[in-house]
Amino acid sequence: MANRVDEILSWYESDNPGVLKNLRWMLETGRLAGTGKMVILPVDQGFEHGPARSFAKNAAGYDPSYHYQLAIDAGCNAYAAPLGFLEAGARRYAGRIPTILKLNNSDSLYSSADPRPAVTGSVDDALRLGCAAVGFTIYPGSAERNEMYMEFREIAEEAKSAGLAVVLWSYPRGAGLSKEGETGVDVIAYAAQIAAQLGAHVIKVKPPTEHIEQDAARKVYETEGIAISTLADRVAHVVQSAFDGRRIVIFSGGAAKGTEALVEEIRGIAAGGAFGSIMGRNSFQRPKSEAIELLHTVMDLYRAQA
Amino acid sequence: MANRVDEILSWYESDNPGVLKNLRWMLETGRLAGTGKMVILPVDQGFEHGPARSFAKNAAGYDPSYHYQLAIDAGCNAYAAPLGFLEAGARRYAGRIPTILKLNNSDSLYSSADPRPAVTGSVDDALRLGCAAVGFTIYPGSAERNEMYMEFREIAEEAKSAGLAVVLWSYPRGAGLSKEGETGVDVIAYAAQIAAQLGAHVIKVKPPTEHIEQDAARKVYETEGIAISTLADRVAHVVQSAFDGRRIVIFSGGAAKGTEALVEEIRGIAAGGAFGSIMGRNSFQRPKSEAIELLHTVMDLYRAQA
Amino acid sequence: MANRVDEILSWYESDNPGVLKNLRWMLETGRLAGTGKMVILPVDQGFEHGPARSFAKNAAGYDPSYHYQLAIDAGCNAYAAPLGFLEAGARRYAGRIPTILKLNNSDSLYSSADPRPAVTGSVDDALRLGCAAVGFTIYPGSAERNEMYMEFREIAEEAKSAGLAVVLWSYPRGAGLSKEGETGVDVIAYAAQIAAQLGAHVIKVKPPTEHIEQDAARKVYETEGIAISTLADRVAHVVQSAFDGRRIVIFSGGAAKGTEALVEEIRGIAAGGAFGSIMGRNSFQRPKSEAIELLHTVMDLYRAQA
Amino acid sequence: MANRVDEILSWYESDNPGVLKNLRWMLETGRLAGTGKMVILPVDQGFEHGPARSFAKNAAGYDPSYHYQLAIDAGCNAYAAPLGFLEAGARRYAGRIPTILKLNNSDSLYSSADPRPAVTGSVDDALRLGCAAVGFTIYPGSAERNEMYMEFREIAEEAKSAGLAVVLWSYPRGAGLSKEGETGVDVIAYAAQIAAQLGAHVIKVKPPTEHIEQDAARKVYETEGIAISTLADRVAHVVQSAFDGRRIVIFSGGAAKGTEALVEEIRGIAAGGAFGSIMGRNSFQRPKSEAIELLHTVMDLYRAQA
Amino acid sequence: MANRVDEILSWYESDNPGVLKNLRWMLETGRLAGTGKMVILPVDQGFEHGPARSFAKNAAGYDPSYHYQLAIDAGCNAYAAPLGFLEAGARRYAGRIPTILKLNNSDSLYSSADPRPAVTGSVDDALRLGCAAVGFTIYPGSAERNEMYMEFREIAEEAKSAGLAVVLWSYPRGAGLSKEGETGVDVIAYAAQIAAQLGAHVIKVKPPTEHIEQDAARKVYETEGIAISTLADRVAHVVQSAFDGRRIVIFSGGAAKGTEALVEEIRGIAAGGAFGSIMGRNSFQRPKSEAIELLHTVMDLYRAQA
Repeated sequence: MANRVDEILSWYESDNPGVLKNLRWMLETGRLAGTGKMVILPVDQGFEHGPARSFAKNAAGYDPSYHYQLAIDAGCNAYAAPLGFLEAGARRYAGRIPTILKLNNSDSLYSSADPRPAVTGSVDDALRLGCAAVGFTIYPGSAERNEMYMEFREIAEEAKSAGLAVVLWSYPRGAGLSKEGETGVDVIAYAAQIAAQLGAHVIKVKPPTEHIEQDAARKVYETEGIAISTLADRVAHVVQSAFDGRRIVIFSGGAAKGTEALVEEIRGIAAGGAFGSIMGRNSFQRPKSEAIELLHTVMDLYRAQA
Repeated sequence: MANRVDEILSWYESDNPGVLKNLRWMLETGRLAGTGKMVILPVDQGFEHGPARSFAKNAAGYDPSYHYQLAIDAGCNAYAAPLGFLEAGARRYAGRIPTILKLNNSDSLYSSADPRPAVTGSVDDALRLGCAAVGFTIYPGSAERNEMYMEFREIAEEAKSAGLAVVLWSYPRGAGLSKEGETGVDVIAYAAQIAAQLGAHVIKVKPPTEHIEQDAARKVYETEGIAISTLADRVAHVVQSAFDGRRIVIFSGGAAKGTEALVEEIRGIAAGGAFGSIMGRNSFQRPKSEAIELLHTVMDLYRAQA
Repeated sequence: MANRVDEILSWYESDNPGVLKNLRWMLETGRLAGTGKMVILPVDQGFEHGPARSFAKNAAGYDPSYHYQLAIDAGCNAYAAPLGFLEAGARRYAGRIPTILKLNNSDSLYSSADPRPAVTGSVDDALRLGCAAVGFTIYPGSAERNEMYMEFREIAEEAKSAGLAVVLWSYPRGAGLSKEGETGVDVIAYAAQIAAQLGAHVIKVKPPTEHIEQDAARKVYETEGIAISTLADRVAHVVQSAFDGRRIVIFSGGAAKGTEALVEEIRGIAAGGAFGSIMGRNSFQRPKSEAIELLHTVMDLYRAQA
Repeated sequence: MANRVDEILSWYESDNPGVLKNLRWMLETGRLAGTGKMVILPVDQGFEHGPARSFAKNAAGYDPSYHYQLAIDAGCNAYAAPLGFLEAGARRYAGRIPTILKLNNSDSLYSSADPRPAVTGSVDDALRLGCAAVGFTIYPGSAERNEMYMEFREIAEEAKSAGLAVVLWSYPRGAGLSKEGETGVDVIAYAAQIAAQLGAHVIKVKPPTEHIEQDAARKVYETEGIAISTLADRVAHVVQSAFDGRRIVIFSGGAAKGTEALVEEIRGIAAGGAFGSIMGRNSFQRPKSEAIELLHTVMDLYRAQA
Repeated sequence: MANRVDEILSWYESDNPGVLKNLRWMLETGRLAGTGKMVILPVDQGFEHGPARSFAKNAAGYDPSYHYQLAIDAGCNAYAAPLGFLEAGARRYAGRIPTILKLNNSDSLYSSADPRPAVTGSVDDALRLGCAAVGFTIYPGSAERNEMYMEFREIAEEAKSAGLAVVLWSYPRGAGLSKEGETGVDVIAYAAQIAAQLGAHVIKVKPPTEHIEQDAARKVYETEGIAISTLADRVAHVVQSAFDGRRIVIFSGGAAKGTEALVEEIRGIAAGGAFGSIMGRNSFQRPKSEAIELLHTVMDLYRAQA
């Protein structure tokens, strides 16, 4: 299986050995080590939605250590969180699991039609905390999108030159898009393309729906007969849209939901050739043993496609 | 009791020895030395409300020396003030009490719906003045919140790397919130979480009320049965919201009030597991001996919970 | 024919040998090597219009390698693309064809009356990727034009001092202009002049129409009898407007169109003394062999004028 | 008398010897040398009001040399002006009188409800011109106030570290205040406090009127019985508001007026314990001998209080 | 006559020998060498008005070499142009005539009520191109004026310290002024004062009209009986307004006009004590021999006043 990891790393041909080392660290960690697939635990919901909405359901999660340990115990490839959460366990968990420092975040005590997160950490923070990668969020479709792209550009350049991998959350949102359009298949595919062109190593998008947002795109989907009727079809199209499958594209789990619905969704995503999932609330809001069981199920679905 | 200080310092595991030294200096100073509890004297009201409103009641307070001496005589853990006030006693009081340089401030000759303080000092100022820490204010809920978070990010990174502790005033305010919402329990808990995620060592919030501001939060408070009926309950929830009690969270005294009301409030805060109080107007607007007596009462309430 | 290249290089008399080397590399590469004419393959449509609209018609184009190889196989002078696309082949194709890193880009998930692209790469990126030049887009006529000119100024100064050539896409657009005015002959000539005054080495504009946008300009076109009735006339006027023909001015192919219409257009452009074409969608959306055939036809038209 | 200067310098306990040297230079220059009182000649009206309104009345003042010489001949403590005026005599008058480089200025060819001056010089300029101090203007009450405070913060930090004294013009103005409020006693006292907290060494304010602008302040003035009925009372309150008299507070002369009215005003200001005056138009718009006579009268009023 | 140059240079007493060398170079070049008078050829109209409006009338002017040669052949003191035009002849004409790099420019494909040019070159550019000076434009009266003053401040400081002279185009324009007011005598005199206070070595303004724009100024012009009835009177007042004649103030020729009208205007300007003219369109839009003849006539008018 190591060959698959080597193959994936070969796509990042402009990157220095430091970046390759960190990508390899993530790809060779956890239960999916060596398969080329990844399941990442992200915990930024405390910042994004507030502590009670995030952690009251499973109160162990108020403690930052819980998430480090959950990611390790479940055999995830990496753990992603904002500055405070990573600082709070950085020494005890140093080197035990690859970490991804989320460098920008939004809270929900204020909201606007054209959102833009605050930058809350730095590449230097990621280095001193021993991270494998930095994470960043862009909102294509927002009037502020270009500011985010440009913040990302600077951070990515600095991170790459320091040997860190770069993970980009590409989440269409803002006045340029309808609510439905945020997950429309044309928009998600476009978001993946933008992330790839911006130079991200790992791209995180939401599962695409059948909705098509832009008229100019609809014409092409119809004329060229692009298959989008099943989730697997749509995921395959999104993966293709990120350099013909030569970039790691992973999918978010979205809002917390029932186990069955979730497993069904992952099945479709995995069948479409996705490189993995990033699952937050669906993991840490469940009791720990239940969460681990679910994560293992998800990992098995990906392993089956590896 | 020194063990409690060691325990607290153990939570700041990503910080360098310089930061730990300064946190320890504050925790081992004054009448609460070694208890893990803190009472801090802050005097930024001259800038925030004007000189007459701040000092006319006890005119000794026009003189910056007064506050240094009051903090020492009352046995406070630290004294916090803006640049001018600290400069005016920095040499005479060097090393006699830990000082916190407030790095941003708002005056009230102009007001806007979405406030943002001016940065009025620097980390280099704090270093040349021999401070133990820098202080900063953010207003979650303001349209300008992200600018404040980002200013804080830069300052905190610089301060930590220079071995200074970082104290964050997290005061929800602005167009995103109702007036009542500024002290709603969901909002205060969220403000504490944001401060912790931004990497603050010491977090200052206002005492929370029973009000719940956000509908999405209310649902969770009800479903999960989070106790918020007493002030102690609410304080406990706020402390939990800052990394399950693994960050120092202290509470402001708010507007000047009668001694009895104040003591009653502190009793509730202390019972909730707060790490201490920061008391400005309620201290320096009283005659000195009365202020010291009150501060001792407050300290005793905290010591009783240590 | 080498004399023509030397002549062209002599016009760039303020540039250092590094810049001259890279201009020469582009002028002495491909089927038009040594003629003083250039045909460049640009592939930024994935970012600008989205992946499906760009690549579904000829799905091989989802793969970044395809375009490197197409540019080489067709004998182009250079290949231009955004960061991600160039990174994805930088090592394999290093030194095989001059590359131009497009340093700013716009996506179409949000649009505004006064557009301004995001800066998505840097001069340092271009250097580490072994590029011959950087590319940049300005939109004269936009309320944001000055910000773009100033971004370009900084980038061009840095690129020139690092020995990179500078290619400027000068595309009038924005609230200052009517839709028709974007390609009006007075506006295109003005756009070429601005680009030349800003210090670009290679200027890319759209083919001009007979429309005249500005009243103050119309008077002059009539009084002085400037010939604009044929495309060749207009192209000659645009080339003259860029320092009397002493700057390399090339023309875009515009929207994908039928082969005959395209060849006819290029014939006019070449007859007007243009230095070449830059053809994206008209190249990579055709099957490869057809694209190469078309590019060869275009090159032959330019060679006939060399 | 030198003891008074030593006493004043002792208040600036955080400053380096370079700053103390320059404060001492100003305090030990001119007819008030050694008294702890200061009269400064400021000439920025050419920039602020235009040349004819400033200099036509006494046309000798068009020449920058005139003001250097006037300040020396009248025995002023220092001469303050913008970059151009200081440059124009910097070499001839080097070391003959302390100079203060005004680092920001407003012209009146454009006006707005929320004014903010342009920064027109630098600390490096002050150093190369041999100045004793830099001067800066803030407008508390303007929507742009925070930008001015932050510009001042940076400049003051740089100036202090280079050994220059820092003079702050604190002039309330802008949409947050009524026209009357600009000189209301609560507002002027507040302006002095802000300047002191921002770290200014010398604070310049306007003479306060009996008007009280802010309701929250009025309550305190009444309850605490702060005396404000005479100009001397009000000046004493303003001086107290600047760290209980431990900062140098000087007062502007305001609009040009009759000699008697002016002398009467200065008498009140001096009686209130002011550290001096800064008199522009009332000096240089009079014939030179008359101006010197007036300045001597003013100095004598201050000496009488020293 | 060299004494007059020495006298002029003596006014720039704060400047380093590098600046004096470059001022001297300009003052001792061309037909007016040594007289203390200057006629400068500026060619930024290609950028400001577009190529056809600028060069179609005399098509030789499309070629950047033409203007270098015209300035030399006519015996001008210096030649001023934007980056592209200077780069295009910098090597061939190096040292043959002093050049002034115009560092900011506006195009007319977009216009706004409060204009602000784009910065299009740098001090480093001026140095590598062997220039004697940098040029910059400010628009007093525009809401954006302060941004321009601050850009100029930085550029001027950098240029002076690198030994370059600084030429400031001070052109009142924007929402703060009526159309007539842009050339009103009070406004032009004010513009000259601002430029001098900002530290410019050479100040370029438009010929003033009898119009008075500001009420506060009108009162003074009447009371003090400032002579403004002839152009010579007004020019004398403007020259006096720039440090009593101790700064080089030159006047623009304005829109292209008939030879007689132009000569008449220059006669008045010269009689008023102006230091010279800067003549663009009136020079390069005429056939070369005619232009040279006109420039010689203009120079003779100035020589007659030297």
